[in-house]
Amino acid sequence: MLEQLKEQVLAANLDLPAHKLVTFTWGNVSGVDRERGLLVIKPSGVEYTTMAAQDMVVVSLETGKVVEGSKKPSSDTPTHLALYRHFHTIGGIVHTHSRHATIWSQAGRSLPAWGTTHADYFYGSIPCTRLMTPEEIRSEYEYLTGQVIIETFEQQQLDPMEVPAVLVHSHGPFAWGADAADAVHNAVVLEECAYMGLFSQQLNAQLGDMQQELLDKHYLRKHGKNSYYGQ
Amino acid sequence: MLEQLKEQVLAANLDLPAHKLVTFTWGNVSGVDRERGLLVIKPSGVEYTTMAAQDMVVVSLETGKVVEGSKKPSSDTPTHLALYRHFHTIGGIVHTHSRHATIWSQAGRSLPAWGTTHADYFYGSIPCTRLMTPEEIRSEYEYLTGQVIIETFEQQQLDPMEVPAVLVHSHGPFAWGADAADAVHNAVVLEECAYMGLFSQQLNAQLGDMQQELLDKHYLRKHGKNSYYGQ
Amino acid sequence: MLEQLKEQVLAANLDLPAHKLVTFTWGNVSGVDRERGLLVIKPSGVEYTTMAAQDMVVVSLETGKVVEGSKKPSSDTPTHLALYRHFHTIGGIVHTHSRHATIWSQAGRSLPAWGTTHADYFYGSIPCTRLMTPEEIRSEYEYLTGQVIIETFEQQQLDPMEVPAVLVHSHGPFAWGADAADAVHNAVVLEECAYMGLFSQQLNAQLGDMQQELLDKHYLRKHGKNSYYGQ
Amino acid sequence: MLEQLKEQVLAANLDLPAHKLVTFTWGNVSGVDRERGLLVIKPSGVEYTTMAAQDMVVVSLETGKVVEGSKKPSSDTPTHLALYRHFHTIGGIVHTHSRHATIWSQAGRSLPAWGTTHADYFYGSIPCTRLMTPEEIRSEYEYLTGQVIIETFEQQQLDPMEVPAVLVHSHGPFAWGADAADAVHNAVVLEECAYMGLFSQQLNAQLGDMQQELLDKHYLRKHGKNSYYGQ
Repeated sequence: MLEQLKEQVLAANLDLPAHKLVTFTWGNVSGVDRERGLLVIKPSGVEYTTMAAQDMVVVSLETGKVVEGSKKPSSDTPTHLALYRHFHTIGGIVHTHSRHATIWSQAGRSLPAWGTTHADYFYGSIPCTRLMTPEEIRSEYEYLTGQVIIETFEQQQLDPMEVPAVLVHSHGPFAWGADAADAVHNAVVLEECAYMGLFSQQLNAQLGDMQQELLDKHYLRKHGKNSYYGQ
Repeated sequence: MLEQLKEQVLAANLDLPAHKLVTFTWGNVSGVDRERGLLVIKPSGVEYTTMAAQDMVVVSLETGKVVEGSKKPSSDTPTHLALYRHFHTIGGIVHTHSRHATIWSQAGRSLPAWGTTHADYFYGSIPCTRLMTPEEIRSEYEYLTGQVIIETFEQQQLDPMEVPAVLVHSHGPFAWGADAADAVHNAVVLEECAYMGLFSQQLNAQLGDMQQELLDKHYLRKHGKNSYYGQ
Repeated sequence: MLEQLKEQVLAANLDLPAHKLVTFTWGNVSGVDRERGLLVIKPSGVEYTTMAAQDMVVVSLETGKVVEGSKKPSSDTPTHLALYRHFHTIGGIVHTHSRHATIWSQAGRSLPAWGTTHADYFYGSIPCTRLMTPEEIRSEYEYLTGQVIIETFEQQQLDPMEVPAVLVHSHGPFAWGADAADAVHNAVVLEECAYMGLFSQQLNAQLGDMQQELLDKHYLRKHGKNSYYGQ
Repeated sequence: MLEQLKEQVLAANLDLPAHKLVTFTWGNVSGVDRERGLLVIKPSGVEYTTMAAQDMVVVSLETGKVVEGSKKPSSDTPTHLALYRHFHTIGGIVHTHSRHATIWSQAGRSLPAWGTTHADYFYGSIPCTRLMTPEEIRSEYEYLTGQVIIETFEQQQLDPMEVPAVLVHSHGPFAWGADAADAVHNAVVLEECAYMGLFSQQLNAQLGDMQQELLDKHYLRKHGKNSYYGQ
């Protein structure tokens, strides 16, 4: 069942240590099959070195219950569920504790668009969520983490495909994309931008947002119907 | 004698360069056999590349004397002894000069819990010890290093299994855990948190402790009888 | 056609990931054949791992049109064209988003000559360009990026072979040299100097330019007719 | 001639890229045979990947002239000569542009002893030299670089075997030791301490020198007749 998607999700999970985005098992990638209403996600706490396609867990998008797989799904599965349910255009999600994106999360700060590296992938700042309330933390924490992400995008009127990442306050980043591989790609870019942003501001404490025209130019030359980057 | 423990302690020592926690021979891991009252520890100043299980040194927990092994034990053995004698729940100890944990030690600062990465492993700040007195330094220095760690945990009423690491002032970190492998695991997490904490505070100079509820949530979802992380 | 130059340009492109100057496909190197009036450049958005010499694209220096190659040339080709047309002494150009050079670009700051590492390769500060106007960004953006680089060198009366690199504001570095390999060599040095400059100034906030005599000594012992470095 | 020393010097030179202390050919190691009055040094500007023992150059300690070898010796040979002539206890010297030691050099600051990592190898601060005068730079620059290092050690009454490294202002580090391998070992430690010192001070802006008793304890447990570290 969903063998191809399992292989894609496995490959995307293995890309995390390859890109040095994770330590130990701190990360999880999922992919979704919208037609069948199923998501495939990494099992909880399993080593990347021994992980196989058949370890991937299949979960119902509607009920959140495991449909196939002998292992428990990632403990962050409810966050993935919330995002897939609300963001209908996304096909893959990744969560990591990558160092520099996590630094911005821990500092509770959104990452401004400070250069064309950022603008090539993200159409504006990558928002940091608000603190969760004690009630939210104590009840369905992982699911409500997803809800707070959604709230952030709604309040700031962001399109999740134009800004395919978020910084969860005091926690770390989630990124997403057209599929699992694309989600990981965006997570790598986020980590690069988070590193460069940290020190760009140290070099220039008055650093404001980049020019809107330059942001438009770079984002739109790689995205949308007038894009002209790549083959 | 204790062949399995020697293999475990060797493997844990070799994990130090694998995780880039040590330069040259700057690190040592030990494991304890509580029933027999013996600890197994890395020999002093031996290269990781040529180290074998039979090089591990067996030391009496009671007398501190070498019971088996042709090599001298790590010069930090008395610190390990002090910790095993006082912290009855720990099964393995590691000392490194890993860069960022050492930076916090050199700065003489405790590492606050600033995010869920920290909270997943450490139930609160990782304390920095007080300066040792000239008398302590001149007498049984390594043993008294252990005593000052113990004093720190007693004064702050910390459970060593809930906060399985310490920053020794002007020196570097010690970490511990259920066994030697777990101790090294915690040392890796400490280094990650030390890196991220350093720059989190640079991004947000007013950074206070993380929410107690979030610390509780993350620590307790991985530890204790209600934990639900992993398989 | 131009098989040797294609091999050189391919090798120089592959040097980018080898020196950790690029993530994904974020970089491009070209080389020029002045006699034939042709440049050879990396195709747009192609993975380094699968790139072959026959993927390199041949472009006319005069018309900017593709003369040979089945793939689209790098989207930055017009910038390369502008630089080759105006800087007659350069034989290779490279563009990257290498982390620390990009940090200086994003901060909008020129990189001062702060030590002999810099002075061995660059005869003075590496300039940061001005912001481009909204009109420049909206029209022939890539070509005008080259024009703004040229304007910077003209206004500051810099010889592009004495200062073989530039920081494009809010974007990232371009470097060049006698040929494609030399351009990449200079890009590596720039990245080293950008890293060290960032933290040198943090250690000494009053850091002024290095002594002119020391800059002269180091630059001239490696360049020009009285050089005495190397075999 | 001096085949064993050439092998040692080659091995020590190859240790530089292995420890990530050099980019390209930016580094050189030498060793001395005091009885024969000869030093063996890396050739100038030769790649580490292709370097062989027979490429090492033999130079007379007395005259500074090449005695054997088909290649030109490192352009820094006169600095090595000056140090060997004046510091009679040293057997090997290394020069690098390792990132963090160079950052301290560029900032023109001595590196204080801020922890036991430093104290295990260096008995106090690692001094930064004064700026060289324009006259010194224009005349026998490399030899006078050595003289300024010697002047620094004499004025501060430092024993070169107790403080086996120096930061040359606006340039980078030199380190030395009992032989070529020991010199490289000290250069690695210097780089570690330079990294940790940079950020230790950022974490604690009021950071003073470490306790003298702790410096004594750590230095003396590894050096001198009462040392007890290692086998």
